[in-house]
Amino acid sequence: MTRTGRRPGNPGTREAILTAARDAFSRQGYAGASVRRIAAAAGVDPALVHHYFGTKDELFTAALELPFTPAKVLPQVIAGDPDGIGERLLRTFLGIWDGPGGQQGLAALRTMLARDAEVGLFREFLISQVLRRAVEEYGLPDAAVRVPLAASQLIGVVLVRYVLRLEPLAGASVDWIVATVGPTIQRYLTGELPAPGPAD
Amino acid sequence: MTRTGRRPGNPGTREAILTAARDAFSRQGYAGASVRRIAAAAGVDPALVHHYFGTKDELFTAALELPFTPAKVLPQVIAGDPDGIGERLLRTFLGIWDGPGGQQGLAALRTMLARDAEVGLFREFLISQVLRRAVEEYGLPDAAVRVPLAASQLIGVVLVRYVLRLEPLAGASVDWIVATVGPTIQRYLTGELPAPGPAD
Repeated sequence: MTRTGRRPGNPGTREAILTAARDAFSRQGYAGASVRRIAAAAGVDPALVHHYFGTKDELFTAALELPFTPAKVLPQVIAGDPDGIGERLLRTFLGIWDGPGGQQGLAALRTMLARDAEVGLFREFLISQVLRRAVEEYGLPDAAVRVPLAASQLIGVVLVRYVLRLEPLAGASVDWIVATVGPTIQRYLTGELPAPGPAD
Repeated sequence: MTRTGRRPGNPGTREAILTAARDAFSRQGYAGASVRRIAAAAGVDPALVHHYFGTKDELFTAALELPFTPAKVLPQVIAGDPDGIGERLLRTFLGIWDGPGGQQGLAALRTMLARDAEVGLFREFLISQVLRRAVEEYGLPDAAVRVPLAASQLIGVVLVRYVLRLEPLAGASVDWIVATVGPTIQRYLTGELPAPGPAD
């Protein structure tokens, strides 16, 4: 097969869109970036961006190469007994990294954490895709404080289990991790926490 | 000032020792690596390694460019009321990353997490410098299970506060983080935890 330049389905076109998306989300934030301008920067029609990547949310997730879209995952986590939200979130999260796309997602996470340009993109992802939803769509009280705390434990577990591969977390069953670490996530999301004091 | 080749104090000599140390610790582990062989690989006398870097523990920490040596930090954390160990550990840990060497340490941590070769070195560091001490020197019950859990939360807080710079953790006072996250570390280190089940 010879390469005949850009066309629908051409990996070069997909990559050009993702590059333009990373640049736009990184410089303008999620709210400021537009699919229309991303398409223009990539030299394609906006309809092609939607055809390849779906919604703006899904384009953002694809640009980060993360194996999940919060808009699809969060509803099932948040539905149900509030006392089980910590365990459900952790179980769902571990399932994602254990599942298809998990390995590629890990590589993307590690790269993002290492590079200043991309770490800002990851922060914007957490703010616009996770935190904003928790506030606006699910009305989680004190989400702006609680979600980053939960994120700190979730990111730490992912790094120790899948990247550092430190036992017992590396080889432990999901059930054991959920029973052990789930109460931490639960407390951060719904438990009593000290009021934030002034920064020092 | 002209460069006149290797000599005591020459940055090239220090770097050669650190490179040989990284290679040895990475391939042979902490216990298997020897200062004598590291010195030989770097083309220097073992006494020079000790002169520059102190003990084998300190050489390991220097090789990782981390801003602390567990052998020096852990005694002050572990001394005192066992019910305050979580808060002391977290407060000490945040002080290290906020202090001199913190920025360089963060850069080193991010690089290690991103590279397969170095992630093994970091795991070996946690096992030989932190976990082994907790077991052998301080007799922490179930340290092999508890220390990695505490590490997952500590690493997560460092990444969210200093790398992702996600509020409120980025700008929060150390007191607030200690009051909020300290109980998690305390529970992992001394609280009741589920018995590890079979891996799945």
